Amino acid sequence: MDVKSIISQMTLEEKAALCSGKDFWHLDTPQRLGIESVMVSDGPCGIRKQSDAADHLGLNASVPATSYPTGSCMACSFDRELFRRSGEVLGHACQAEDLSVLLGPAINIKRSPLGGRNFEYLSEDPYLTGELAKNYINGVQSQNVGVSVKHFAANSQEYNRMSSDSVVDERTLREIYLSAFETAVKDSKPWTIMCSYNRINGTFAAENKRLLTDILRDEWGFDGYVMSDWGATTADRVKCLEAGMELEMPGKNAANDKQIVDAVNNGTLDIKVLDTAVERILNIVLKYTENKQSETKIDFEADHEEARKIADESMVLLKNDGILPLKRSQKLAFIGKFAETPRFQGGGSSHVNSYKVTSALEAAKGLDVTYAPGYDTNTTESDEALLEEAQEAAKNADVAVVFVGITDAMESEGMDRRTLSMPKNHEALVKAVSEVQKNTVVVVMCGGCITMPWIDDVRGVLYAYLGGEAVGTATLDLLFGDVNPSGKLAETFPRRLEDNPSYLYFFGDEQNKTEYREGVFVGYRYYDKKNMDVLFPFGYGLSYTTFEYSNLTLDKSKMNDTDTLTVSVNVRNTGKVKGKEVVQLYVGMPESRTIRPVKELRGFEKIELEPGEEKTVTFTLAKRAFAYYRTDISDWYVESGDYTIMAAKSSRDIACTATVNVTSTTQIKRVYTMNSTIEEIMESPVGREILGKMMAQNPLAQADADDIGMGEAMARMMAEMPLRALLSFGGDSVPAGAGEMLLKQLNA
Amino acid sequence: MDVKSIISQMTLEEKAALCSGKDFWHLDTPQRLGIESVMVSDGPCGIRKQSDAADHLGLNASVPATSYPTGSCMACSFDRELFRRSGEVLGHACQAEDLSVLLGPAINIKRSPLGGRNFEYLSEDPYLTGELAKNYINGVQSQNVGVSVKHFAANSQEYNRMSSDSVVDERTLREIYLSAFETAVKDSKPWTIMCSYNRINGTFAAENKRLLTDILRDEWGFDGYVMSDWGATTADRVKCLEAGMELEMPGKNAANDKQIVDAVNNGTLDIKVLDTAVERILNIVLKYTENKQSETKIDFEADHEEARKIADESMVLLKNDGILPLKRSQKLAFIGKFAETPRFQGGGSSHVNSYKVTSALEAAKGLDVTYAPGYDTNTTESDEALLEEAQEAAKNADVAVVFVGITDAMESEGMDRRTLSMPKNHEALVKAVSEVQKNTVVVVMCGGCITMPWIDDVRGVLYAYLGGEAVGTATLDLLFGDVNPSGKLAETFPRRLEDNPSYLYFFGDEQNKTEYREGVFVGYRYYDKKNMDVLFPFGYGLSYTTFEYSNLTLDKSKMNDTDTLTVSVNVRNTGKVKGKEVVQLYVGMPESRTIRPVKELRGFEKIELEPGEEKTVTFTLAKRAFAYYRTDISDWYVESGDYTIMAAKSSRDIACTATVNVTSTTQIKRVYTMNSTIEEIMESPVGREILGKMMAQNPLAQADADDIGMGEAMARMMAEMPLRALLSFGGDSVPAGAGEMLLKQLNA
Repeated sequence: MDVKSIISQMTLEEKAALCSGKDFWHLDTPQRLGIESVMVSDGPCGIRKQSDAADHLGLNASVPATSYPTGSCMACSFDRELFRRSGEVLGHACQAEDLSVLLGPAINIKRSPLGGRNFEYLSEDPYLTGELAKNYINGVQSQNVGVSVKHFAANSQEYNRMSSDSVVDERTLREIYLSAFETAVKDSKPWTIMCSYNRINGTFAAENKRLLTDILRDEWGFDGYVMSDWGATTADRVKCLEAGMELEMPGKNAANDKQIVDAVNNGTLDIKVLDTAVERILNIVLKYTENKQSETKIDFEADHEEARKIADESMVLLKNDGILPLKRSQKLAFIGKFAETPRFQGGGSSHVNSYKVTSALEAAKGLDVTYAPGYDTNTTESDEALLEEAQEAAKNADVAVVFVGITDAMESEGMDRRTLSMPKNHEALVKAVSEVQKNTVVVVMCGGCITMPWIDDVRGVLYAYLGGEAVGTATLDLLFGDVNPSGKLAETFPRRLEDNPSYLYFFGDEQNKTEYREGVFVGYRYYDKKNMDVLFPFGYGLSYTTFEYSNLTLDKSKMNDTDTLTVSVNVRNTGKVKGKEVVQLYVGMPESRTIRPVKELRGFEKIELEPGEEKTVTFTLAKRAFAYYRTDISDWYVESGDYTIMAAKSSRDIACTATVNVTSTTQIKRVYTMNSTIEEIMESPVGREILGKMMAQNPLAQADADDIGMGEAMARMMAEMPLRALLSFGGDSVPAGAGEMLLKQLNA
Repeated sequence: MDVKSIISQMTLEEKAALCSGKDFWHLDTPQRLGIESVMVSDGPCGIRKQSDAADHLGLNASVPATSYPTGSCMACSFDRELFRRSGEVLGHACQAEDLSVLLGPAINIKRSPLGGRNFEYLSEDPYLTGELAKNYINGVQSQNVGVSVKHFAANSQEYNRMSSDSVVDERTLREIYLSAFETAVKDSKPWTIMCSYNRINGTFAAENKRLLTDILRDEWGFDGYVMSDWGATTADRVKCLEAGMELEMPGKNAANDKQIVDAVNNGTLDIKVLDTAVERILNIVLKYTENKQSETKIDFEADHEEARKIADESMVLLKNDGILPLKRSQKLAFIGKFAETPRFQGGGSSHVNSYKVTSALEAAKGLDVTYAPGYDTNTTESDEALLEEAQEAAKNADVAVVFVGITDAMESEGMDRRTLSMPKNHEALVKAVSEVQKNTVVVVMCGGCITMPWIDDVRGVLYAYLGGEAVGTATLDLLFGDVNPSGKLAETFPRRLEDNPSYLYFFGDEQNKTEYREGVFVGYRYYDKKNMDVLFPFGYGLSYTTFEYSNLTLDKSKMNDTDTLTVSVNVRNTGKVKGKEVVQLYVGMPESRTIRPVKELRGFEKIELEPGEEKTVTFTLAKRAFAYYRTDISDWYVESGDYTIMAAKSSRDIACTATVNVTSTTQIKRVYTMNSTIEEIMESPVGREILGKMMAQNPLAQADADDIGMGEAMARMMAEMPLRALLSFGGDSVPAGAGEMLLKQLNA
């Protein structure tokens, strides 16, 4: 259908109506003109389709669907193909369920481990987040179903999320909080974007023209539509529309539709703005309806296997002193309620009515496994009887596997965590078991990171995160070594909550402002710069085999920032079993003159190697790999100089390094003023010539600084002295107008 | 003389001339009208009067004067009376030297231990700084000599100090960087203030009307004149004058005087502004000249003793496992060049041509002391021969006293430090000596803090700081126990430079902006909040005796913020020798709803106790002791609730605590908007009534959240939901205009 022609037939009221939902999940399309209403539904870890039309709020169970590992879990796969495949499977299911748009992926940056929604988000690193997200999007949209990339932007807390103001400086916004969205928009053309609840530097996301139009559309080329998070539209519907927020969700908010109609009628809103919004929405609606694959069917058993495979690739082996993999012949004790009733997904909009859930206990059927619950999930207090029972079971086994983590009540959309500790009864269980059984392995189920005061008391730790509905099977795949663990942490595990860079300011002030004072120093960027010890670093994860890196090679040693650099490194499996390795590439500039992280992730590849096998992994680095965002030129900028290229097993385990010299091709015209320093002026040939003469007449420049014991200090004082001060110290010996003359020549 | 009448006789040119110095150190007074020229001179640790009229730059030696311990040293005395007395002595010397104004005290806050001028500044804590500074000022001005309190403001680095921009949020500015200036101005009426070189939030201090007029004069009641730091006047002299910067130093800058004349002539500058400036300067000039004490003579020997007494009270005993005090009968080795040529003052404007300097070696004459230089002060590299000689001397003694520190070249005005480490050869010396002599004591001479990788290898550490010209005698006073050490650190010694809160942003960005991103979390406020281990905490220092605290008593348990609280605590000397104790009082609010430090210093008293003696120390706390600066009301605000009162031996050694409940008397009218949250609205009786009814009709409010496993999260989501979202979720069930109606009633 021709969109322009449809629009020409729509009434003003129909246009306004299209700009808010018909109900909680449907669009209010002009059915009179043959445009069928379409449905959107929560993702991103599985479909949450509310089948009961009367249940607008989605408080009751949704239709059964496959529950996949959450974002925080899947991100540890560091596997682009896995994300693409998972998007494909979800998109396929959407077609089967008649869903036009899946509300995901959720790609906000994990600023604090307390973030209540961290379980849905991917990483503390924007490059990793962007790379994985774009593959997921490509996967979903390959099925002709749209995504809604959320929550745009700087929405890294749940506390007061509907009113809090994220105060973020421009560079940090660009480098950390917008970067993954930028990658997603540019590389995978998402059908829709979901704007967040919060304000960004004072302006609500829904009213944020700079964000929704200037950056998103004009800079990045976004051509889909923006919908509001449910309830994120402000009281000024027209302002939101003008900012570029086309679709208000949920609906139907007649008063807001009326605002639009009235504004057009009284001339305060240009009808063209409304028409553009309508066109954008209709384009996406038709893209879906005109290519609907109505015959699609979901194969829940096959999807359950997909969920298992994703979990296999994602769970992270954090500690193993040789106790793992377990043997099926061993007498095992599975201890902890989560072995029987696993925690495998988060609460809130991503909550899925799972098709089926496999617990570890179920997956272990047929093996010599005893079970003790160890704790009651309805409380955080320890129960002595349960602990004694657990100890008894542990004592009588060869190995105790303790299943613990964070409860549903402690980790959900709508509420930030208050601590990194597990509940008291979970911690007590690990302690009790490890006291009586030296062969103790801990499996942690949790959406984010925790502290581990017991880490030295146990022999192995498998971090399952929230592993989706096949969590039990996947856990056993990894514990028994049927699958070799290959997940790497997509977030740093700090030793203590206080260590986190956002700790001082996370919950905002009494004016509801949350200042992102740590700037670009989020996650490992902070721990590295502050040279801090961490529990587990970003990019860390163990395998049942070992890998050796060698021969890091750059295709050039000098380049311009417009060139690309090809980097290769050889990786060999030096152990006895097949395994996968996530080869990480970091870039840093040791002698940078600006404030920047020690190193940043700029590439990663996951490869599989047979024992003894070696592969060459190749990366291509372009300008952005060396750049930081310069606010004075509003652009990415590569400082000229030497950059260190690091091939690494984790952010704290650099295997090989090499150096490349990069030259900036950006000309920044320096404007000299009376406040320019002598050092700055002396960097210009004109300045050197003229100032040299002037300074020969300035007594300060000739003074023997060592007389007053100042040596280097005097040199620095001279170098850092602004022109105005030099003139002032010169007193009457400086001819009138000399400074102005110099500036004129410098700026010529 | 009548100032108004003088002004009426001055020509425009004479008025402009008075607004800049006649030369580097003199004011350009209208001598034609009988106003003699007056001189100002550097302080604050001793007079640096340049006697050679031709030496405008002060590069040659100044007239001999007593060199007192620097600010960083003296502040450790925590002794108000000592500061008053030291001001008195300095003021007396100024009278003798015909100086109208002493350029000091320097009271910027130590934001980073790297600050090149930290040796002159007092503390990381604004309360301590303010209390000591005001006593110093009262002392100087009691001699009818003015002070110039410097450097106003937010000038906590040397790097690019003449052009850098200190970007500081308002609350931090008020609580940390302006607070000591405020105390000084309000409590001791300084004659002059010196504005700093840097910009504050984009505006140079010299042009900063908000700082120099709105805050300094209008809010705090300053009635002296403001002079520029030497060269701090900007290119726009008129703008500086209008901002409230009366006196440009140094002079004579004819071009700038002409700017003023031209501006008056062409009508862009109101002559009243100039007249006011002239009046302010003349008032101070006459205050001095009309009460000049021309017969004053300096008693250099007596002042030398003053310098020694100050050092005795200020040096800090950091470690003593029983080796100290030393006995005169012991065979001692004094090792390190600083034993012979002590480092006792800093470089730059505070550099004094000392009357005489006593080294430790000199002070030890007659004792069994051998000496080895250990290192060469002209290099930082170790010299094997010197180290061997030192080891030899150490081996043959009962105790080795190693004198080390930071060299002149590493610590001076005009240049920030780059490391907290001592020079390599100093560190190597401590290591070499402690390897061969288990009885090793280290004396450190340095203007700020250092790291001590060798701390566990030595038995005692005396921190001399820069102890003034009697440093040697004072060191021995303390080492031998003739004086019992009573200094307490006025700054935290972090374990590593990276631990410092300003570490990430200290040197500013390429646009010369230094962002004070750590906010109010400076010094112990940061280390406490982040629960970090430190090398030595703020307020820490050992004695040769011990003290016991008891019976912390508050005169009330509940109070309004307009009341005062009387706090008393008993302190007993439980050791065998007489000693002084600095009793510290901290206040904290454990359950605060805003972001604030764990505790803050709000009182201190230094008392002397004979063995067994007990005294009751009394403090009075008023509003400011409980308040923080609220930017939304532009005022100090006391949050209602429980405050913990802590009597402490150091910031990390709290002896007794008590609780007082304080009620705010400030009414803050809340303005309700569509963005007010349900929780906020429910706090109002009107809101509770109306919203209660509305919510009874809202399906979301009635949903059984536990059905989707969200419990507490759902409750938080409801509480934090803004009115607009509540209305939006209500859809068409909410009558049109209901929100507006509610707001009207709430705001009535």
